[in-house]
Amino acid sequence: MKKTINDLGKYGLVDHIISGFTPGNKTTVISPGDDSAAIAAGNELVLFSADLMLEGIHFNLIYTPLKHLGYKSVIRAISDIYAMNGKPGQILISLGISSRFTLEDIDEFYNGVKLACLKYDVDLAGGDTTSSLTGLTIGLTALGTVSENRVVKRSGAKPNDLVCVTGDLGASYMGLQLLERERRLFESNRDLKPVLEGHEYIIGRQLKPEFPSDIPDLLEKNGITPTSMTDITEGLASDLLQLCKSSDTGCRIYRDKIPVAEETGAMAEEFGIDPLVPVLNGGEDYELLFTVPLDQFERLSRLGRIKIIGHITQNDYGRFIVSGNGEEAELTAQGWRS
Amino acid sequence: MKKTINDLGKYGLVDHIISGFTPGNKTTVISPGDDSAAIAAGNELVLFSADLMLEGIHFNLIYTPLKHLGYKSVIRAISDIYAMNGKPGQILISLGISSRFTLEDIDEFYNGVKLACLKYDVDLAGGDTTSSLTGLTIGLTALGTVSENRVVKRSGAKPNDLVCVTGDLGASYMGLQLLERERRLFESNRDLKPVLEGHEYIIGRQLKPEFPSDIPDLLEKNGITPTSMTDITEGLASDLLQLCKSSDTGCRIYRDKIPVAEETGAMAEEFGIDPLVPVLNGGEDYELLFTVPLDQFERLSRLGRIKIIGHITQNDYGRFIVSGNGEEAELTAQGWRS
Repeated sequence: MKKTINDLGKYGLVDHIISGFTPGNKTTVISPGDDSAAIAAGNELVLFSADLMLEGIHFNLIYTPLKHLGYKSVIRAISDIYAMNGKPGQILISLGISSRFTLEDIDEFYNGVKLACLKYDVDLAGGDTTSSLTGLTIGLTALGTVSENRVVKRSGAKPNDLVCVTGDLGASYMGLQLLERERRLFESNRDLKPVLEGHEYIIGRQLKPEFPSDIPDLLEKNGITPTSMTDITEGLASDLLQLCKSSDTGCRIYRDKIPVAEETGAMAEEFGIDPLVPVLNGGEDYELLFTVPLDQFERLSRLGRIKIIGHITQNDYGRFIVSGNGEEAELTAQGWRS
Repeated sequence: MKKTINDLGKYGLVDHIISGFTPGNKTTVISPGDDSAAIAAGNELVLFSADLMLEGIHFNLIYTPLKHLGYKSVIRAISDIYAMNGKPGQILISLGISSRFTLEDIDEFYNGVKLACLKYDVDLAGGDTTSSLTGLTIGLTALGTVSENRVVKRSGAKPNDLVCVTGDLGASYMGLQLLERERRLFESNRDLKPVLEGHEYIIGRQLKPEFPSDIPDLLEKNGITPTSMTDITEGLASDLLQLCKSSDTGCRIYRDKIPVAEETGAMAEEFGIDPLVPVLNGGEDYELLFTVPLDQFERLSRLGRIKIIGHITQNDYGRFIVSGNGEEAELTAQGWRS
């Protein structure tokens, strides 16, 4: 049977597409298959990456304020630059706008963009605007820089390296589930008021995420050199599998070590699902996933802010998550998603 | 009355958006308001720009082969880099794909991308793939380089400079009108076969455009230094007005000097419209528009391939097109378009 787009999944489709291309331009130093591409420019690399955010797929304007959406667009764009241990400097935003949007709507969106640009010290350096027949379409490009000896790819993990994450995982996904549930209730009965109190953390993680942009400097100052790195945007499972695949390694991570916020666990329980589902396959965490040599364990532990969730193994040991009672389950990515 | 997006038009909307942003990052050297933005990297500038192409707005898949669309996407992306007198090196393509597309469709699209990448010596350096609820969405990013003393902005035109264009104008638009007419006929009667013979040139300009990528080198070799430059993608009127606005000048162009292909004129006549309409407001010409000091007139003329269509004036002289009998009409851009 012929393979379909669904069979391949997101990363599989990207791999399929880029396998037909061989970089030939002498300025291209990192090409498809990492979080950002890079060109050489003096002693520095210029990192660049692109993203799409589509209405109905990546956001629902019923519960997403346009200002928040603008803010989140910046976070999504710069996330790929941080994922290479780089520093973002510029973004481009291209908007496809349907006729139901007013100039005030567009201003709201860019007010959010501006807030995030100020906070993360990036410039909006241009973009495109066009009309759209359907929903709001957001094209994102981010540029950044990193010195050649500091760039961290997905492909550098080695057996025995520690697998590290920042922040906590799964919150954004549970926030989305809650917002979607309240939307459905509201649509079936317009008198119902959405009940969101007590869930501010997971809703905030969904609607107005931040990126742990201080981590690269923190690691450097403490003499910690990651061997591989990526951002957690598709879900820990998918992103870790991609890192292992690029590095030609296996991994073993421990369920009890994965940081999950209290609100995330409580909401998963309310929905009757294992908290591992949002953690592994939720996505939109906007956290860093990286590996560090075993001998930097003590330095890492002293930082407090980094969680060690497992270690890298030889490729033929497979890629597993280990539960509290020692049971091992193979890590699997979701199929075709956003 | 409040201004609407329609009142502003495409360039007006971009100006409105960027007026709220002040570049603060020290690496940003050219920021919004030109064809590309730029960051400094050693002695070179890294140029970058972004574009969106949306199904139903920029292309209709009924008569656009996916391979051609892939090819054209590359042309559209790199056009902004050439417009700064730069050399494109890399592109990123982000695709939003609805469920009606097969893996073979995607391969067809990228086959066209590959052809153009080879021809124009650019690398596909990455991108994003995502599902889409509606049509095909194409996000484009192009990167390129130019030495600092060679970059040409929109804003450098001076009174008495010559206004120059490459190629011929309006063909792509008339090709589109023809394809749209045949589509409507076909949809009203499925037995009708589209009549496209004899119109290969204008159809080719619409479906599989090329970019005059050799012009920058040709100018340099002949000691010609453009003072301002942009690409003709929105239509000569819109792009020239934007150049004049950026340069704070007026202009006077001459109807009889503007290059129009025979097929373009014939098709305009068939449609009963003035050929000036596609020429001034058609768009998608993918040609260069630039200004050159008057004293380089002889060198320019010797090249043959460049058409001088008028000259730059002081700002308060206005922006006009002059007909064969000396009548002057003010140049006006279309409203909100793609």
